[in-house]
Amino acid sequence: MNEIRIFSPASIANLSCGYDILGVCLDKVGDEILVRKTKKRGVVITKITGQKLSKDIRLNVAGVSASALLNETEVDCGFEIEIHKGIKPGSGIGSSAASSAGSVFAINQLIGKPYSNKELVKFAMEGEKAASGSLHADNVAAVLLGGFTFVRNSSKNDYFKLNSPIELAFTIIHPQIEIKTSDSRAIVKKHVSLQEMTEQSANIGSFVTGLYTEDYELIGRSIEDNVIEPLRSILIPKFNELKKTSLYNGALGCGISGSGPSVFAISKGASTAKKVGVSMGKIYNELDLEYDIHISYVNDIGIKILEFK
Amino acid sequence: MNEIRIFSPASIANLSCGYDILGVCLDKVGDEILVRKTKKRGVVITKITGQKLSKDIRLNVAGVSASALLNETEVDCGFEIEIHKGIKPGSGIGSSAASSAGSVFAINQLIGKPYSNKELVKFAMEGEKAASGSLHADNVAAVLLGGFTFVRNSSKNDYFKLNSPIELAFTIIHPQIEIKTSDSRAIVKKHVSLQEMTEQSANIGSFVTGLYTEDYELIGRSIEDNVIEPLRSILIPKFNELKKTSLYNGALGCGISGSGPSVFAISKGASTAKKVGVSMGKIYNELDLEYDIHISYVNDIGIKILEFK
Repeated sequence: MNEIRIFSPASIANLSCGYDILGVCLDKVGDEILVRKTKKRGVVITKITGQKLSKDIRLNVAGVSASALLNETEVDCGFEIEIHKGIKPGSGIGSSAASSAGSVFAINQLIGKPYSNKELVKFAMEGEKAASGSLHADNVAAVLLGGFTFVRNSSKNDYFKLNSPIELAFTIIHPQIEIKTSDSRAIVKKHVSLQEMTEQSANIGSFVTGLYTEDYELIGRSIEDNVIEPLRSILIPKFNELKKTSLYNGALGCGISGSGPSVFAISKGASTAKKVGVSMGKIYNELDLEYDIHISYVNDIGIKILEFK
Repeated sequence: MNEIRIFSPASIANLSCGYDILGVCLDKVGDEILVRKTKKRGVVITKITGQKLSKDIRLNVAGVSASALLNETEVDCGFEIEIHKGIKPGSGIGSSAASSAGSVFAINQLIGKPYSNKELVKFAMEGEKAASGSLHADNVAAVLLGGFTFVRNSSKNDYFKLNSPIELAFTIIHPQIEIKTSDSRAIVKKHVSLQEMTEQSANIGSFVTGLYTEDYELIGRSIEDNVIEPLRSILIPKFNELKKTSLYNGALGCGISGSGPSVFAISKGASTAKKVGVSMGKIYNELDLEYDIHISYVNDIGIKILEFK
């Protein structure tokens, strides 16, 4: 195999109750990445479409993660990367994760798969670190493993995939404002009360239970965050109204996607998810604020190979 | 039915990663409670064996919870309660919970079961409040529902039962010192770092995942608590040594039972649990400290009816 073209999907981290530990992989929206073997060693990014981003491999997350992989692996060739961004940077649905995870996934395929997808998480995290300043695995684990993923301890590579109830559908609304992950992380408070810790623990435990028992109501009411959301939601236009209308229109739960500004809602079935999306769109129409809306079931596969030769 | 005799079991709360939200019901060790209908209205405690405890229904937790139930329920009779304590108060394995839950369970049976076991939790919690000063449901929910139980929100009666992997066996060692729950709660710090909250959330989510996927290793490594254990373990003689020897002898995880002083270990299979118990006992033999040891699988039923007429 000399060339591979993949689809590397968007993802939602945190999901309200799982700050830095929970993620889910989405469908349809994502980046397309083409990687080609070259005789000359090293990594070069030859083309980026869809967004204006640096091609410098020390600055572009796809280059950073690819370099991390190649620093640990002996190969007798180099790689050219083309990135077609389908996810807007700073949207809060894992733009950097899609590129970081995508480049290492593609290179791993081209060199005969010496690593499992789970083992690739640590390289992809280097891209995340370049983007946000911290090694967090919640988005990249979701992209590489697919489905709902849980990060128990990223420094011990302790990640795993959870069960995904088949009817869970996501609505994501992305207001066209940019919040950098590093800025959004900065406003989070450094200490919480024991009561808040207990509530957060109660919700993540209940959420996981809901996934395994396929109890949609329990999943919905566990989408609760009294720690981070009250602070970060200030940066998101009309957050409380979005949440209210989504729940009124049948969503099971609603919260901030990653560090925002995207807001997600979960529903049982895509038709409810679409109705929820329309109701959220109305809020931003009234503000004359531009936005994107995505409707997606859980992508239980993760990155998809589109073509290779 | 005019008289009922029940076995109301011991339980472990917290289980390291689930402070105030996780509990498990044990087998073999517990209280026997006999409740008899009387013509005269009201509740009286006529006999207590096994421990010296007050028979005043405003002070004895079984009387407090029974009174809470009868305040909400119209009945044309009264009740006599006999309690045969098999659990030592202050042991940290749910002594007050067994009595609080047992009395309301027995009365509910005698009056034709107007309440589900889940609905009885709120009455039993009143007994817990009398014992420790706070309304916590983790032990009483485990006793009334059986198995592993999760308390998402006790003020909203949001409790549920989790899956119990069949080979999970508990070793409990109870050093013969008394720590009052109210004292042990007092030394817990009131604030934690965001990092500690994330770690605690990661462990409870992983623990629940392990219960559903029956991944014994994952269950074991999720028995971790960097928040409460470092403070409470100071009150428990040789806690670190007990933990070390239990893990060395094959336990999957080890922590403080409830607010202590009992220490629990979990193992796969009763033979490992017994071996772990012997190794823990040696530590206290060297100290000349008296102790009890219990070995128990998970009691998935909860309270058992022994006899009625």
